[in-house]
Amino acid sequence: MVTFDFSISCNSFLNTMDIKREMERKGEVFSSFEKSSMIGWMDPVDATLIEKIFHIRDRIKQNSKCLVVIGIGGSFLGSYAMKEMFSDYFSKEEFPIIYAGTSLSSQYMDQLLSYLKTIDFSVQVISKSGTTMETMITYQLVKQLMEEKYSKEELRKRIIITTDSKEGSLRKEAETEGYDAFIIPNNIGGRYSITTPAHLLAMSFFLDISKFLEGFYQGLKRQEEAYQYAVVRKLLFERGKYIENFCVYEPKLYYFTEWLKQLFGETEGKEQKGIFPVSTVHTRDLHSLGQFIQEGNPILFETFFKIHHSTKILYNQLELHHINNVVLDSVVDAHISGGVPCNLIELDQIEEDTIGQLCAFFMLSAAYSGYLFGVDPFNQPGVEVYKKRIRENLELHF
Amino acid sequence: MVTFDFSISCNSFLNTMDIKREMERKGEVFSSFEKSSMIGWMDPVDATLIEKIFHIRDRIKQNSKCLVVIGIGGSFLGSYAMKEMFSDYFSKEEFPIIYAGTSLSSQYMDQLLSYLKTIDFSVQVISKSGTTMETMITYQLVKQLMEEKYSKEELRKRIIITTDSKEGSLRKEAETEGYDAFIIPNNIGGRYSITTPAHLLAMSFFLDISKFLEGFYQGLKRQEEAYQYAVVRKLLFERGKYIENFCVYEPKLYYFTEWLKQLFGETEGKEQKGIFPVSTVHTRDLHSLGQFIQEGNPILFETFFKIHHSTKILYNQLELHHINNVVLDSVVDAHISGGVPCNLIELDQIEEDTIGQLCAFFMLSAAYSGYLFGVDPFNQPGVEVYKKRIRENLELHF
Repeated sequence: MVTFDFSISCNSFLNTMDIKREMERKGEVFSSFEKSSMIGWMDPVDATLIEKIFHIRDRIKQNSKCLVVIGIGGSFLGSYAMKEMFSDYFSKEEFPIIYAGTSLSSQYMDQLLSYLKTIDFSVQVISKSGTTMETMITYQLVKQLMEEKYSKEELRKRIIITTDSKEGSLRKEAETEGYDAFIIPNNIGGRYSITTPAHLLAMSFFLDISKFLEGFYQGLKRQEEAYQYAVVRKLLFERGKYIENFCVYEPKLYYFTEWLKQLFGETEGKEQKGIFPVSTVHTRDLHSLGQFIQEGNPILFETFFKIHHSTKILYNQLELHHINNVVLDSVVDAHISGGVPCNLIELDQIEEDTIGQLCAFFMLSAAYSGYLFGVDPFNQPGVEVYKKRIRENLELHF
Repeated sequence: MVTFDFSISCNSFLNTMDIKREMERKGEVFSSFEKSSMIGWMDPVDATLIEKIFHIRDRIKQNSKCLVVIGIGGSFLGSYAMKEMFSDYFSKEEFPIIYAGTSLSSQYMDQLLSYLKTIDFSVQVISKSGTTMETMITYQLVKQLMEEKYSKEELRKRIIITTDSKEGSLRKEAETEGYDAFIIPNNIGGRYSITTPAHLLAMSFFLDISKFLEGFYQGLKRQEEAYQYAVVRKLLFERGKYIENFCVYEPKLYYFTEWLKQLFGETEGKEQKGIFPVSTVHTRDLHSLGQFIQEGNPILFETFFKIHHSTKILYNQLELHHINNVVLDSVVDAHISGGVPCNLIELDQIEEDTIGQLCAFFMLSAAYSGYLFGVDPFNQPGVEVYKKRIRENLELHF
């Protein structure tokens, strides 16, 4: 079960006329949304695709000690957030997955390559265009190492390409070399791609992707609430609340907030508009940014994630998880008293179907929000600006 | 070598008269600073204290497989940031340090306790008041486990207390039980405590703390530049740049930016004032928040960390680190063209003395900034608000 509560923002920080006005734009927003060519993620995932994912996963489990996933941005954050969320804090993972290609740090790369020399591994390289600089540099360096370690035939069992259905150097390589390949559909953008093989293959190692997808389809039905959330956020923005802080009380949810930051930030942040997304991991960050949120420049609102059930552990006759949730309630109270609007999202527990629901809910809401702000929710023209300068400054052809 | 360059902000985004006006307040700010009773961190650390740290470190290395550091906020972020920065990305640490007490997650606690059952360890518990809720809950649960594993005599070799010199339950416990104890001086607050035993003991396991302190004292001499930085930030704030984004190009610097976020956020964020601190790890986050920074709501300015030397690794005849720095330069160019003021901090490489210098520089600058904003740089009254509500909602006496 997942519930959404925007009543605090609506009752204490916004006025009814504004809410009514924006709610009345729903038909117009929904109709723009439905006309978009970039909502392929609304369609169910094909059963044969799931079978192919399981087949390749099983082969990797057999012939490798580890999977190296090479991707960045929308080809990284989704499955990485899920991996963190569904892993234990201390015990070693059953099957380790290393995410690479998110950095140009030479120290990282050097240590990555040294480590990979010592183990048997497979690689999934993910880039829709096949021209993403970090991904392609990392892939080339890792592939060089693989060519030293493995025969051509062996490479065909260890390299999985995930890219456009027809275009780009990676598609060409898959065809020439006979590598297994997955398609990133043309009608799905990076930050909306969590139900594509760019994420599902890695996810299949540590969670039940069928249950996740079931939850996701359930979540797609919550269009009304997703629209409400988009309206509340936009109205808070218009009242000078320029920052949204996602607050989690389970540290392993941190990268889920990073996924949210890309989803909302990249969707809304254009034409000088948009809410800047940040996150805090409580209670840790109450001891660092708590002061600012309570009494500093009042430009924030918050969205809290409350989880009803977790591991039982007692402290002085009290369940620790109960204490954690009492702290959450107390913080909400305190921040409201400091003029910070707070939204509340509650889930039974962290499991595939609730998290799937959340993903769908946020994707819908982010897309609606783009239309409410009057920007295209599915493009990211600003990302090209620094890339153009890199091409001017460097003899690299990406 | 560490250099600071605020010329872009000064020349392209601020006007000379404003800068002149704020620079003229220097005497007044420096005099308030020097009169403060909370600048104990300006004094050199005693040599006998360093000896005691080494002595205890060596004992822990002998009798334990791991050190558990229990602390939160100012008793956590400093040494944790240093640990991340001075660790390799892949190889296992020489001597593992686990940081606990930063969460009330029962799942985390359960898995922590299960793990600690399997190994020999020592504990450093850090709380100035001895009443920090997360710290005390974690310490009690961990101590319960230790009492099952170890004799009273053995506990005296495995528990190190770091707290006030006279007051509080932890000081009392140290005296009654005969545990080794360090003092957090009364004239040093949590976020300014990186040169106290709250951080130096853990740091002594993975870096040369004498070199770090030497660098720190060098940094304390850069008062002019620290003041300039404070002035530039405040003037950018007055021009509607409400968020400062710290940008790093080496992922292991991420927690250093978390330390900065507490330092600046908790120092300035009061009386409805202050710049909200955020951070991005590049190039990863260029693919998530880059769009927003380039073209979204123009309320950000940025401070970049550029590192001159790193591991050598070649990609197509180019040094990867060179590519990383060309990307940095290109991003600065692109963001300036998007109306984002950018400051630049350059260091030769990540090593004890340059990082020590940086810490001192930022601590000075944060303190000056408090005075420029007209708030007390050394208090954090807002943190009490939610704690009061917790006490009303829960029968716990912290």
